[in-house]
Amino acid sequence: MSVCEILSVGTEILLGDILNTNSRFLSRALANMGISVLYHETVGDNEQRLYDAVKRALGRSDIVITTGGLGPTPDDITRDVCTKAFGYGLVFRPELADQIKEYFDRSGRQMAESNLRQAYAPEEATVFRNHNGTAPGLGMKKDGKCLVLLPGPPFEAEPMFRQSVVPFLEEYRTCTIVSHQVRTMGIGESSMAQIAGELLDGENPTVAPYCKTGEAYLRVSARAATAAEADRLSAPVINEIEKRLGEYIYGIDVNGIEEAAVPLLKEAGLTVAVAESCTAGLVAKRITDVPGASKVFHHGIITYSNDVKIKALGVNPETLRKHGAVSEETATEMAQGVRKVSGADIGISVTGFAGPDSDEPGKAPGLIYTALSAEGTTLCEKIETGRNDRDYNRFVASSRALNLLRRYLISIASKENTR
Amino acid sequence: MSVCEILSVGTEILLGDILNTNSRFLSRALANMGISVLYHETVGDNEQRLYDAVKRALGRSDIVITTGGLGPTPDDITRDVCTKAFGYGLVFRPELADQIKEYFDRSGRQMAESNLRQAYAPEEATVFRNHNGTAPGLGMKKDGKCLVLLPGPPFEAEPMFRQSVVPFLEEYRTCTIVSHQVRTMGIGESSMAQIAGELLDGENPTVAPYCKTGEAYLRVSARAATAAEADRLSAPVINEIEKRLGEYIYGIDVNGIEEAAVPLLKEAGLTVAVAESCTAGLVAKRITDVPGASKVFHHGIITYSNDVKIKALGVNPETLRKHGAVSEETATEMAQGVRKVSGADIGISVTGFAGPDSDEPGKAPGLIYTALSAEGTTLCEKIETGRNDRDYNRFVASSRALNLLRRYLISIASKENTR
Repeated sequence: MSVCEILSVGTEILLGDILNTNSRFLSRALANMGISVLYHETVGDNEQRLYDAVKRALGRSDIVITTGGLGPTPDDITRDVCTKAFGYGLVFRPELADQIKEYFDRSGRQMAESNLRQAYAPEEATVFRNHNGTAPGLGMKKDGKCLVLLPGPPFEAEPMFRQSVVPFLEEYRTCTIVSHQVRTMGIGESSMAQIAGELLDGENPTVAPYCKTGEAYLRVSARAATAAEADRLSAPVINEIEKRLGEYIYGIDVNGIEEAAVPLLKEAGLTVAVAESCTAGLVAKRITDVPGASKVFHHGIITYSNDVKIKALGVNPETLRKHGAVSEETATEMAQGVRKVSGADIGISVTGFAGPDSDEPGKAPGLIYTALSAEGTTLCEKIETGRNDRDYNRFVASSRALNLLRRYLISIASKENTR
Repeated sequence: MSVCEILSVGTEILLGDILNTNSRFLSRALANMGISVLYHETVGDNEQRLYDAVKRALGRSDIVITTGGLGPTPDDITRDVCTKAFGYGLVFRPELADQIKEYFDRSGRQMAESNLRQAYAPEEATVFRNHNGTAPGLGMKKDGKCLVLLPGPPFEAEPMFRQSVVPFLEEYRTCTIVSHQVRTMGIGESSMAQIAGELLDGENPTVAPYCKTGEAYLRVSARAATAAEADRLSAPVINEIEKRLGEYIYGIDVNGIEEAAVPLLKEAGLTVAVAESCTAGLVAKRITDVPGASKVFHHGIITYSNDVKIKALGVNPETLRKHGAVSEETATEMAQGVRKVSGADIGISVTGFAGPDSDEPGKAPGLIYTALSAEGTTLCEKIETGRNDRDYNRFVASSRALNLLRRYLISIASKENTR
């Protein structure tokens, strides 16, 4: 099996000015091709240290991928040094100069003469077109060694890798690894793992538990010759996970609970309105993160004081006095109130203590209630995160409100189906 | 000057499963002590490759800092391999065993026997206590070389570095570098840099321009023997920047415009209410990200349709028909409406096209209006981001609304002062 290493070039990385995300992106992409990465190394914009690092890398690895240092300024030395280390020389390539000029024309900017440094490449090199910047990438192969040079900015390097470098490295591919995320809500990581049980021992696909801001998910990764074959291996395991974890699962390969809830609303042809206290707009923001949400969401009310809960949502002052703002009763009246005021089909609400301080004695930060009101239905859920972390509590509160909405929509859809 | 390198250990980094944030944290912290970092390297949990990497690192650098591989499982080999490479041997240290047991007692969990592996350390080593996990850190010095071993999880490594490793490395410190961020809003990075002019050529402090989701900032970094001395060097330069960039500057070393606007509201003893269309809760969410915002913010209304703008805010249907939902006229009526409905001192509003699609012909995504209504004042600002990026446009829209609020509060404060 071929081994690869990633060599990042840039003093700004060694100063801690920027985070090296390229190494991670490339490592994951190479792992998915069955190519082993054995080293990451970073050196600054220093000719001797870079030259030594390239030589060392080419000595111990079959494939070396560099990122950074392809720009037009004098401290961009990767092109020159790497080409020399690989035993090639640079020549001016007019077609590259044309592409660079064209890029400047398109973006309406003036090209500096120094940009023409980027039009130099070894005759023997494959050139990777840069659609998001001026520095072309380069690929060289000789005597069983392969050297790839990519630009530093991730929005240039990542599409270039996907479009041009994956095909360039095709001969080194030993397999295709395809991963899927089965995302859950309302169950902890360890309980989820316990229910997944012996599925976690599988070798192909592998199944691994992870957690992320108040939710847990399983990653199912299969290795095969092709992506389709990998998916065939994963399918029965994902089916079995779905059987076991049932309604905890809100989606597969979706980016968040809002991406599960909003489409269900569209399918059902229903609208939702939100009343938010502690999340103060975050539920509405997440609903409208999904393009086209304007079809199902029109009205949100943020009630950050008791007075506004009474005035804008019609919450009974007696309820607030007796049970407090953070209570099942208040949450329920908020959901009912926003449904009535807005005329939406469904009202959802959130009230809770996000922290750092809780205003009511005996109620800890992380105590949250979320409620839903719809034709003939009232639901309420109590959440205790046990954490005094404002951002975490607000995010989890918004997630659980959206999950309450999702569960309600599923329950009415299944009733429809059994009619 | 002493040179340092950072050696990260962990196959999960080479697989791209985790992002290597430790290297960045350590690089920045070392730069602030005047210690040069010349290499980052990452190797997997492989004995031979790790041994070679440590030997190579100790050969070319004065200080080597490793992260990761100090856990209790068999693939945690950093302690053994590094100690051997440094020429020391491990001995059982009962006081470390006690600390580990104590950590488990505190967190109410059962200690596995394997955790006692973490109680082994060279007799000659300085032990760094881990307050957030079980793996102690280690520091060794011999023959002008220094080797420091840190645990992998950032929430363990970062406090340990600050508390214990900074003093351990004190003899290598050549200076103290202190940086300040001067944050601006409403001016582009290149215009800001032009106004900063020759200040960007300074050597101590250095002044460098950066940009970040719709705002630009200057970083002023001074190098001196002490932090106080560094701040004395920066002060006149920051003063001069403040003179030149004036009201564009919303704060120094603050984390966002909300942290500038909310304290001004508190000082003025005024309340604000928000009416949001395209941002749909993001302005309210950002206001309430600031702890204690409940003193100045009580009510927000999200109006994601024309009907709700009319019904909930009293926007004139004729205004919507004639000028559209995304217009100066609508934004202004929204701000006036929310002020009236809520009874707050100030109303602010946002309406715009976030993208990907704009609903009105001739109006592009990124066109946004934000307005403010207060006693005797109406303000409106038009923003054209020129981007079709939903997240970016919504974030910038919320920032500019908060900046409109900030500018208004400053203008009334200065009127108060001149009375």
